[in-house]
Amino acid sequence: MKTVEELLRGKALEEAVELVGSIHPADQAELFWLLEAELREAFLALLSAEGLAHLLEYLDADQQAVVVEKMPRASLARVLDRIDNDVAADILRTLPPAEGARVLSTMSTASEVAPLLAHADESAGGIMTRGFVSLHSEMTTQDAIKYLRLRKPNVEEAYYLYVLDAANRLEGVLSLRELVVAPAATPIHQVMSRDVIAVGPETDQEEVARVVQRYRLRALPVVDEERHLLGITTMDDAMAVASEEATEDMYGIVGLPAEESGYDPINVSARRRLPWLAVNLALVFVAAGVVSRFVDTIEQIAALAVFMPIVAAQGGNAGIQTITLVVREIALGEVELKDARRVLIKEVSVGLLEGIALGLFVGLIAWAWWNNAWLGLVVGVAILLNLMVAGFWGAIIPLGLRWLRLDPAVASGVFLTGFTDVLGFLFLLGLATLLLSQLT
Amino acid sequence: MKTVEELLRGKALEEAVELVGSIHPADQAELFWLLEAELREAFLALLSAEGLAHLLEYLDADQQAVVVEKMPRASLARVLDRIDNDVAADILRTLPPAEGARVLSTMSTASEVAPLLAHADESAGGIMTRGFVSLHSEMTTQDAIKYLRLRKPNVEEAYYLYVLDAANRLEGVLSLRELVVAPAATPIHQVMSRDVIAVGPETDQEEVARVVQRYRLRALPVVDEERHLLGITTMDDAMAVASEEATEDMYGIVGLPAEESGYDPINVSARRRLPWLAVNLALVFVAAGVVSRFVDTIEQIAALAVFMPIVAAQGGNAGIQTITLVVREIALGEVELKDARRVLIKEVSVGLLEGIALGLFVGLIAWAWWNNAWLGLVVGVAILLNLMVAGFWGAIIPLGLRWLRLDPAVASGVFLTGFTDVLGFLFLLGLATLLLSQLT
Repeated sequence: MKTVEELLRGKALEEAVELVGSIHPADQAELFWLLEAELREAFLALLSAEGLAHLLEYLDADQQAVVVEKMPRASLARVLDRIDNDVAADILRTLPPAEGARVLSTMSTASEVAPLLAHADESAGGIMTRGFVSLHSEMTTQDAIKYLRLRKPNVEEAYYLYVLDAANRLEGVLSLRELVVAPAATPIHQVMSRDVIAVGPETDQEEVARVVQRYRLRALPVVDEERHLLGITTMDDAMAVASEEATEDMYGIVGLPAEESGYDPINVSARRRLPWLAVNLALVFVAAGVVSRFVDTIEQIAALAVFMPIVAAQGGNAGIQTITLVVREIALGEVELKDARRVLIKEVSVGLLEGIALGLFVGLIAWAWWNNAWLGLVVGVAILLNLMVAGFWGAIIPLGLRWLRLDPAVASGVFLTGFTDVLGFLFLLGLATLLLSQLT
Repeated sequence: MKTVEELLRGKALEEAVELVGSIHPADQAELFWLLEAELREAFLALLSAEGLAHLLEYLDADQQAVVVEKMPRASLARVLDRIDNDVAADILRTLPPAEGARVLSTMSTASEVAPLLAHADESAGGIMTRGFVSLHSEMTTQDAIKYLRLRKPNVEEAYYLYVLDAANRLEGVLSLRELVVAPAATPIHQVMSRDVIAVGPETDQEEVARVVQRYRLRALPVVDEERHLLGITTMDDAMAVASEEATEDMYGIVGLPAEESGYDPINVSARRRLPWLAVNLALVFVAAGVVSRFVDTIEQIAALAVFMPIVAAQGGNAGIQTITLVVREIALGEVELKDARRVLIKEVSVGLLEGIALGLFVGLIAWAWWNNAWLGLVVGVAILLNLMVAGFWGAIIPLGLRWLRLDPAVASGVFLTGFTDVLGFLFLLGLATLLLSQLT
């Protein structure tokens, strides 16, 4: 790192080229990103079109945009020709439409990349690549190996070979291993498997990741309604999608934007995080409104102010446990809408059990502390009710968002803690007001 | 599903065998798990040792245990011989040691599985498989293909071929694709790559997943200090690990045990979740203790009880945003201990900016609502301070846990919301007591 900086500053270009060329593109990408802005341009100038293509593949979307912006449009087309189709399509999508069309028209891989642009970025069609190897079913294994030697697929993904029928429909699949170990003169259709798991181009990328993981595939073909092979999505893509979606869910629950990064400037981060804090503020203002309706009660029994945070915090913590569980199980395909009733009953019941244990414990402490059994009863029952409510909201918020075809995670924790505050105070202060004569 | 149940009940075994045999093991595994206990035994009886091996590979650990328990020990050895080494090792680990040793001794793959048992379950050595293909560097590509045809590797992972030197040390790697497309008489050492990324057997599985993802590998070799090839970890494993770790982190933050599942019985779930709720309870009791020290102040200015939940909730929400961000970036390798200072400064600064915005807003409302500028000042400053503290704790808790070599996620949210409650009340009620004469 230090060395590369010195070489770039010292204009020792040849040495820098050699050093940069010797490291893995994933490390180049990290190094590039740590360089100061002025040195980045020098760094990019060191790389060939091939090298730039590799670098771009290992940068994330924000970083790609910075690099692409600095590149002359003519050389951009050369670089995009050398990159995976799906990454090239993603980069073209970020350009202004007219400019994207111009770059595309000068690309030699235009016919492969153009169809991808027709699909949504987060669908199977948007993350697939056209770089697959297809065979015809009458070929023998020997022919197929000869064909591969001739074609020299420069794609990573010659792992599965797809077998097409006369009308170019996907008929079967065999792995490169099966091809290599089969006797030389066997017709392909005798060694291929006919049960090909495939998805349509509009399938959501999250579903693609689930299918790849469930069936432990290395690549998943994307086909149209007539089973014409449109492209393949690879396990790399599936792994990146699964990681992205896990981040989105984690961030979503607490109201962090998915694109948040530790390297964002302070004011950008603060501005991005404020909206959901403001929503939480609105909800706790409702909670504060509840409290303000009971100011007379609190003035008479200040002990209630002591137990308010306990009732609220226990509800909030239990509820956010439920939300986290439900959001994650939805993401992993372990909970679906048809399970809503089971999940709801389970979570409310867990809240009931937790509420009995915790309500009893805190209630007894309240009784002993203030020497008033009625106070203990009020506090205990408020905790019990709030934990059941927490289980209810914790299950219903993500399931409801899912039912509305929204992201089940989105700010669900922000809503939940608002609700448990409002209802917790209502239970505690409402019960206390009803039993005021016993408490004072 | 229905059909299989009927066939099993009706003892139409042959048809059931055919139907079950025709579906993918991933689907068999799901179907198996949905069957009633009595039908499960009938289902298992339908499968050959091969079929059972496939089924086990697609079940998760709890489910494997249930199946293994029902299996005679003699047939277990036959099944484990047919399963991936790392899965076989995991299953042997779950048996009582004497029993595991007995089963192992009758396995024909004992020499491959035994070394795995020496490594921790969650290390590279614990998740690796011995099922790799190795070549010697003097072979030609033609020889290598012949060797593959002869050996017919029945492992999924003939994707990379590992090249060993005369002392059996890992010297290079080539992909099956590179072998197939190379001219027939080329010596292997001319087509292989010498830059092999490898890890040691003690490497944590989380690190394995990060390396696989970073360099987009299909498999990662595990070597000892002398670079003898011990085994390989596959992208499947890495993907499963990444998903598992994401779940662990999400659950960890809110104090849910990693093994929690929506299908657990209610009492088990409640008992598992109670411990961290109890820790949170202990912390909010401290918060309640703070409030109780200020009962006199609250009795004089009941408005404070109204603003208590707002100060606490805003701190809790902002802090849990920070925790989630830091935990995830640690998991993705984007934040390390050396970044602690940067992260801390950033998060406290974000808290400062958010605190100015929210403190000003809520302070003005407090002023207008109670017609007392001093109350507005107290509320506003309490919010500002609590948000800065939230940023501080949100960064320091996961980084500190990491520094202690503990899981950065574990119950961090439970601690954080406790701390922001305690300190939020202290700021609000402490300031109010200092300025009591102005407020009443």
